[in-house]
Amino acid sequence: MKIDILSIFPEMFTGVLGSSILSKAAEKGAVQYSVTDFREFADNKHKTVDDYPYGGGAGMVLKAQPIFDAVSSLTEENQTGNKPRVILMCPQGERYTQKKAEELAQEEHLIFICGHYEGYDERIREHVVTDEISIGDYVLTGGELASMVIVDSVVRLLPDVLGKAASHEQDSFSTGLLEHPHYTRPADFRGMKVPDVLLSGNHAHIEKWRTKESIRRTWNRRPDLFDEYPLTDQQRAWLEEIKKED
Amino acid sequence: MKIDILSIFPEMFTGVLGSSILSKAAEKGAVQYSVTDFREFADNKHKTVDDYPYGGGAGMVLKAQPIFDAVSSLTEENQTGNKPRVILMCPQGERYTQKKAEELAQEEHLIFICGHYEGYDERIREHVVTDEISIGDYVLTGGELASMVIVDSVVRLLPDVLGKAASHEQDSFSTGLLEHPHYTRPADFRGMKVPDVLLSGNHAHIEKWRTKESIRRTWNRRPDLFDEYPLTDQQRAWLEEIKKED
Repeated sequence: MKIDILSIFPEMFTGVLGSSILSKAAEKGAVQYSVTDFREFADNKHKTVDDYPYGGGAGMVLKAQPIFDAVSSLTEENQTGNKPRVILMCPQGERYTQKKAEELAQEEHLIFICGHYEGYDERIREHVVTDEISIGDYVLTGGELASMVIVDSVVRLLPDVLGKAASHEQDSFSTGLLEHPHYTRPADFRGMKVPDVLLSGNHAHIEKWRTKESIRRTWNRRPDLFDEYPLTDQQRAWLEEIKKED
Repeated sequence: MKIDILSIFPEMFTGVLGSSILSKAAEKGAVQYSVTDFREFADNKHKTVDDYPYGGGAGMVLKAQPIFDAVSSLTEENQTGNKPRVILMCPQGERYTQKKAEELAQEEHLIFICGHYEGYDERIREHVVTDEISIGDYVLTGGELASMVIVDSVVRLLPDVLGKAASHEQDSFSTGLLEHPHYTRPADFRGMKVPDVLLSGNHAHIEKWRTKESIRRTWNRRPDLFDEYPLTDQQRAWLEEIKKED
């Protein structure tokens, strides 16, 4: 997978793309990152990439020209024949979910457009962009962090990136339930104890406890998830037990 | 505001905290960041911070001891007498919103706990943490990016951080409507034109067009926002017009 990021703050990406799983994925050849300062594509003398909004008002607007030309140069370089997905990070976009991460993980080439403070000239949206994505209902100073979030969530799904094949299949949201509580040594930490069942060695009991605690946590915190991922008959019976206990 | 981040990947933060608004906010004295590798607090010989889960299974679990001791050292240093908010980044947490950002922006001291791949020992949740936050329904390799997202969204709300006082009051989600389209020069870019009304100089017409386009975009993309922020009578009338036009 090839990932291109367009940003006027390329230095923001160094720490994140150079650490941990994202860096290992590149070393393994699963992904290739490239961060481009789209200011280089500005065709005016002062290399400005934004300008005042038509109609007045506060804030600046990202100009169409540098983005059109930067995306077009990255698309020409792409030799595979498949069109890249061109993703605009913006609060008006489709809400990002794990399903969207799985969809993007199938692509060969992703291009992210990151604006900063400003709005985007609408012609970028209409003529260049294939996907507008928002990572949540909050306001960030720019699209940079949002694009890093998407890159992280997509790259970890690529084949061979995570150590154990099973690792991401047990994640929250993949099974539709929140994760059960975890405990590790010591069994008694400053008087705070691990539940007996986890020390019992009885795998059937442990499995039941974990599934039930997953259901309990989902019921208490995110009952909306039950709508998307219906429970099995056994799980529904446990949910009834939980409702009586709580 | 003091912001402490606990992570075993402190180098991930350099680019983001050192650029743009987050860096300027620190220069202005509005905020002070400190990233602490909590591995330094591990009291075992090999400085391990995770261990196998009780009850078996894939993945590792973050141990209670290094986190308890790291948080406690940061809390002792805090001389203001007010307790810090201790925020755990995790998919099971409360869904992050702009309202939560505004709430956190009132605090004097925030401590973020970032795990990586692993689960957290449940005793951390129960005894150290004041807030569990998820930035969205997708899985990240660690809490680092999620904490950067929160830091960014909170710091930009602090007094005097953004250039113009008005800037963040016009953001999406602050008014309850998505932003209207923006345009900047040229009026004709490779045959793609700016709507006439924005070139008219008639401020009343421009204002109406913008509000109506905000309503249209919200209606088309995020009608759920109307439930949280009810429209005025005038806005409701425009929404009826939009429904006939679309």
